[in-house]
Amino acid sequence: MRIALDAMGSDRAPSVEIEGAVGALRELEGDFRIVLVGDEARIEEELTRHADAPLDRIDVVHAPGRIEMGESPAHAIRRKQNSSMVVGLNLHKRGEVDAFISAGSTGAAMAGSVMILGVLPGVDRPAVGTVLPTASGHTLMIDGGANVDTRPQHLLQFAYLGSIYARDLMGIEVPRIGLLNIGEEPEKGDERAVEAHRLLAVAEGLNFVGNVEGRDVIHGKCDVLVCDGFVGNVLLKFYESVAGFMLGLLRREMTEARVELDLTRMFHTLDYTEYGGAPLLGVNGVTIICHGGSPPRAIRNAIRVAAQAVDRKMVSHIERQLARRTEAPLNQ
Amino acid sequence: MRIALDAMGSDRAPSVEIEGAVGALRELEGDFRIVLVGDEARIEEELTRHADAPLDRIDVVHAPGRIEMGESPAHAIRRKQNSSMVVGLNLHKRGEVDAFISAGSTGAAMAGSVMILGVLPGVDRPAVGTVLPTASGHTLMIDGGANVDTRPQHLLQFAYLGSIYARDLMGIEVPRIGLLNIGEEPEKGDERAVEAHRLLAVAEGLNFVGNVEGRDVIHGKCDVLVCDGFVGNVLLKFYESVAGFMLGLLRREMTEARVELDLTRMFHTLDYTEYGGAPLLGVNGVTIICHGGSPPRAIRNAIRVAAQAVDRKMVSHIERQLARRTEAPLNQ
Repeated sequence: MRIALDAMGSDRAPSVEIEGAVGALRELEGDFRIVLVGDEARIEEELTRHADAPLDRIDVVHAPGRIEMGESPAHAIRRKQNSSMVVGLNLHKRGEVDAFISAGSTGAAMAGSVMILGVLPGVDRPAVGTVLPTASGHTLMIDGGANVDTRPQHLLQFAYLGSIYARDLMGIEVPRIGLLNIGEEPEKGDERAVEAHRLLAVAEGLNFVGNVEGRDVIHGKCDVLVCDGFVGNVLLKFYESVAGFMLGLLRREMTEARVELDLTRMFHTLDYTEYGGAPLLGVNGVTIICHGGSPPRAIRNAIRVAAQAVDRKMVSHIERQLARRTEAPLNQ
Repeated sequence: MRIALDAMGSDRAPSVEIEGAVGALRELEGDFRIVLVGDEARIEEELTRHADAPLDRIDVVHAPGRIEMGESPAHAIRRKQNSSMVVGLNLHKRGEVDAFISAGSTGAAMAGSVMILGVLPGVDRPAVGTVLPTASGHTLMIDGGANVDTRPQHLLQFAYLGSIYARDLMGIEVPRIGLLNIGEEPEKGDERAVEAHRLLAVAEGLNFVGNVEGRDVIHGKCDVLVCDGFVGNVLLKFYESVAGFMLGLLRREMTEARVELDLTRMFHTLDYTEYGGAPLLGVNGVTIICHGGSPPRAIRNAIRVAAQAVDRKMVSHIERQLARRTEAPLNQ
């Protein structure tokens, strides 16, 4: 298996990427190689800092360009053919690697995956799945921000994509699918949510558990939380920030009470950026998107997730499941 | 001044309401009376438990009916003319009281206020303002869940309503108005947010500070956070639940480390239900909605907020500000 890693994506590229890659190679045994895509000279230089790097399992593919955060995604993908993002995705498209990982611009990774890898039949819009830490373990939120102005049909597709991911990658045999909404009853919510509930309630092959309110997300009432990318993104970013806010309040209390407590584990539990990147689901390939501020551990985890997705044949499972539904076409 | 309090609204009515009312009367001096609306016998019985209750400043208006949480709001308002909700709102409509407070069904309080008190000219949809604790103090989120499927024009109206409330009731001279969105740039977001940004950017008499992302809400980047009620309600309920979740994690850490720390103040800071109820803005009157699970302190705070809204002439300020805008009509 070969996994391509955009070495120039994160805020501290390429050092974070290379530390993450070396860590993953140490962890993942067997016939497993990492292809670092980016500025060859900088990658080689960075690799010299890791005396323990298994160089026989690392390939470097030179790509001098870089897509910056502020650039228009589709435009940048078309224009910057020599960027690490485009070169890496083309390696995947040609079958030279089995997956692609980037901590660069999420918009560009999404646009590039759609334009270069293409979209699976039956999928109108690929979606980002983000794993949120909850009381019962983890919940996959889909969509985490790639799609706004979605229609109820799209939310139904997200439910199928999320269900397969949760089964293949999170090891949940019959994932509970919830619809993010503002009330429990089927008639609650905006027009999109009411219609999505109706579609989900009669959808075959889905374990739909109904509406999930904002207050129930953290209690892990479902394994897959389906929503439009607007509310998904707001919730996700709010979650990300609230832990830090609470830590600040807590530090004040501890200082005043002269109490010391190691909070590393607690805030590690809450930090979803540690969970190894968000899969882009519905494209014809394995793309994992990492946070721009990812630490090396998150890159290492993303590599492990990508390897599992390849190993468990996630893409062909999605393809097969959606093909089975052609009698009730999704695009109506 | 006379404030009507629905004595039968909360989950633990009427005891919570009466304890809150007695506390408020002790706190608020001068020509100030509370009208308890509900089952007279139960109210009188509950009052006997408060030896210190200033009975000369309490009136009781009998209303034998009660609107339950599950009932269809508009239907219940029409049908249950003898309910505490309808009787209380009619007292306000007739000018016998200056404000109305309820911890009963939010939907019924909203529907009842619109149907009985009416809506101010220039307002298409009244909205719920909810005060969120943030790093810089408090942020008023509007709408907190009363309106879904809003149009950009509605969000502009919410901005005006919120701005006046923040000035009159929160004491912020020039409130910073933010639009909840998934990116900072004006072109980010769904269709509604993009258009709302355009309207807000050119609106007169508003200190619009631009888009506010989910991660910035907690940092108090604005005083008034404008949003559709769907995302507002999801965020609000999530916030409400996350404090409890973190408290659980923290207790585990403290037990294992054998450390003791009094977290009362910290979690009091985070508990927005303590802040005294959410005003329903845009109706022709002062309606304050409390959480069904409100403690007596929240009822007492809501009474204080209602008294301030009356004292500072909030309704006529809203009316005047919106009338000034008739040259650029809101309903276009």
